[in-house]
Amino acid sequence: VRLTHVTADAVQLAGYRHYMQKEIFEQPEAVADTLEAVAGGARLTPALFGPEAEKTFAAIDRVLILGCGTSFHAGMVGRYWLEEYAGLPTTVEIASEYRYRVSVPDAKTLVVAISQSGETADTLAALRHAQGRGMTQTLAICNVPESAIVRTARLAFLTRAGPEIGVASTKAFTTQLTALALLALTLAKQRGRLPEAVEANRLDALRRLPAALGRVLQLEPQIEQWAQRFAERQHALFLGRGTHWPIALEGALKLKEISYIHAEGYPAGELKHGPLALVDREMPVVAVAPRDDLLEKLKSNLQEVRARGAELFVFAEDGSGVGGEEGVHAIVVPSHDAMLAPILHVVPLQLLAYHVALVKGTDVDKPRNLAKSVTVE
Amino acid sequence: VRLTHVTADAVQLAGYRHYMQKEIFEQPEAVADTLEAVAGGARLTPALFGPEAEKTFAAIDRVLILGCGTSFHAGMVGRYWLEEYAGLPTTVEIASEYRYRVSVPDAKTLVVAISQSGETADTLAALRHAQGRGMTQTLAICNVPESAIVRTARLAFLTRAGPEIGVASTKAFTTQLTALALLALTLAKQRGRLPEAVEANRLDALRRLPAALGRVLQLEPQIEQWAQRFAERQHALFLGRGTHWPIALEGALKLKEISYIHAEGYPAGELKHGPLALVDREMPVVAVAPRDDLLEKLKSNLQEVRARGAELFVFAEDGSGVGGEEGVHAIVVPSHDAMLAPILHVVPLQLLAYHVALVKGTDVDKPRNLAKSVTVE
Repeated sequence: VRLTHVTADAVQLAGYRHYMQKEIFEQPEAVADTLEAVAGGARLTPALFGPEAEKTFAAIDRVLILGCGTSFHAGMVGRYWLEEYAGLPTTVEIASEYRYRVSVPDAKTLVVAISQSGETADTLAALRHAQGRGMTQTLAICNVPESAIVRTARLAFLTRAGPEIGVASTKAFTTQLTALALLALTLAKQRGRLPEAVEANRLDALRRLPAALGRVLQLEPQIEQWAQRFAERQHALFLGRGTHWPIALEGALKLKEISYIHAEGYPAGELKHGPLALVDREMPVVAVAPRDDLLEKLKSNLQEVRARGAELFVFAEDGSGVGGEEGVHAIVVPSHDAMLAPILHVVPLQLLAYHVALVKGTDVDKPRNLAKSVTVE
Repeated sequence: VRLTHVTADAVQLAGYRHYMQKEIFEQPEAVADTLEAVAGGARLTPALFGPEAEKTFAAIDRVLILGCGTSFHAGMVGRYWLEEYAGLPTTVEIASEYRYRVSVPDAKTLVVAISQSGETADTLAALRHAQGRGMTQTLAICNVPESAIVRTARLAFLTRAGPEIGVASTKAFTTQLTALALLALTLAKQRGRLPEAVEANRLDALRRLPAALGRVLQLEPQIEQWAQRFAERQHALFLGRGTHWPIALEGALKLKEISYIHAEGYPAGELKHGPLALVDREMPVVAVAPRDDLLEKLKSNLQEVRARGAELFVFAEDGSGVGGEEGVHAIVVPSHDAMLAPILHVVPLQLLAYHVALVKGTDVDKPRNLAKSVTVE
């Protein structure tokens, strides 16, 4: 019986050591599936989010995103996109906070509930709380059709990640980000903020995203080399700015969840307001360095960290010119598209957490204390 | 020369070992001074925020709070108050993020810039960024008159904390919270949401706040007894819900800043979405437990933590019924007023950080790597 079980597992694992590793490597396909409706020559349309979406989107002038854990981090990236591209003021709330606090309802707000399982208790309750206060324009972004959150919201966008078995979410996160990119661009288009040529460019970048993810996955052997050093540490600080601040938070969360290393994410600009006191030789610092307007700021943050003796591990976009000095390790992440950069940059952080956990010998797919879906409070 | 210097210090320290300790104990006076304009029989009036405040407040229907570090945490508490009491939708942004991202300006938003020194580079730049995008309804909450942020904003409320020498902010934070409480209540009144009897009650609670702070300060000997145990740890998790989530963040920040212990704050509802994996015997958990609607939820979070073998240190409001079991240490915080509870509950966390730093022998008033005012990016 046991042998059969192992064999069945081995088939499902398709040669990977763990579901988490398999799911990390399924991301190109999961993102491609999620983008299926805009494949070929298809254009952006509210219908991507359901037949009623056009009317709903026309009735809103703000967005409120609700989520927990990894889904909350996806929402944080979505907020930056929705404000920049669609011009819609957006707030993101941790569902367990939103549902219990006295907030100010607004009927012209699109409430977006994000949850892989569609059953996350706090997110479902937060969505119902919003509805109970008159906020009826609601959208679910979930990976499970017919889940409670999908049934509860007026509109739904289903990510096509396929079943996610590993407790630490990976492909669910990148497909949630893909969904949010489609949402931001669709709302931008409907609001007259996306000229046709720009739309074509953005769709082109989205369609090339799976291939770009494939190139990032090829970094695995380099990341594996960092894992041994990380596994000896008890702490880590993850830094990013802009849309890569939530990516830093997500990278830290992955490391926490499966390697039990106390990793904490910070927006790099906050470093001098406290966390820099923690930085010394014992505290490795991981930075996500896309080649954007904030690169010079981030480099200056990294110099401060380096001056305190910390070892730096930088995932640096091609051409960013980070790395080379003593104590600064850099892995070059292939360039793709500025808007979509966070979707690519999270992948090396997932791989880092995975390989550190392997070295530490933890139960990668079922880390201690955690459940896959948090269906109770 | 050296002796003279020490003597001068000793005089200024007035018997305290460090400026930080002195400043923690000055909080009743600092808060009383900040409340001076509503002393005696005075009522809430927009004039507390400057002669133009009534007109400005009438012209806004939202609030945007900008700050860094401790001031950002004050803003997070302020957000909950402004939404609950004044009914004004409020967002809080880390200044270094806001100034560089593409956000959606709104001329009917009151922009509140919070900074002890009034010179924090990112907060000043964020305020100017908002103004440059047509957001002219601005208010500074600062401790230094004639500072750059005070000069830049249309309105100003000066906290009366007196000079703060210790790098880790304490009395500036509680006076910022006091200012934000006055702001939320004043806006509530102007918007017809504060009946006269309720206003009288709230003013009464504010006027009794300095005495309540004095009672909390008497907990110092009990907190000192916890410090030895903490000083041996490398990690800590700080938990709170609602307005006490930012208080947990602030408590963790203090411990980081002066004891160099890697403390991290979390909204307790997020525990199951990742950080619970970190919890074991090596990870003490500090919780702030006011006697409010969320107490039962928090208790259930604490049981999960306890079940994983973590030692619990709870600052429990009188009557909350927390503590007594094995591995659960509790210090009873005297009750005062539900709205103002976060102002009281942060004080034991400041004292905990201070006494842990004393045991560790760090340079309490000038922790490594940090400057008092971050006047450069």
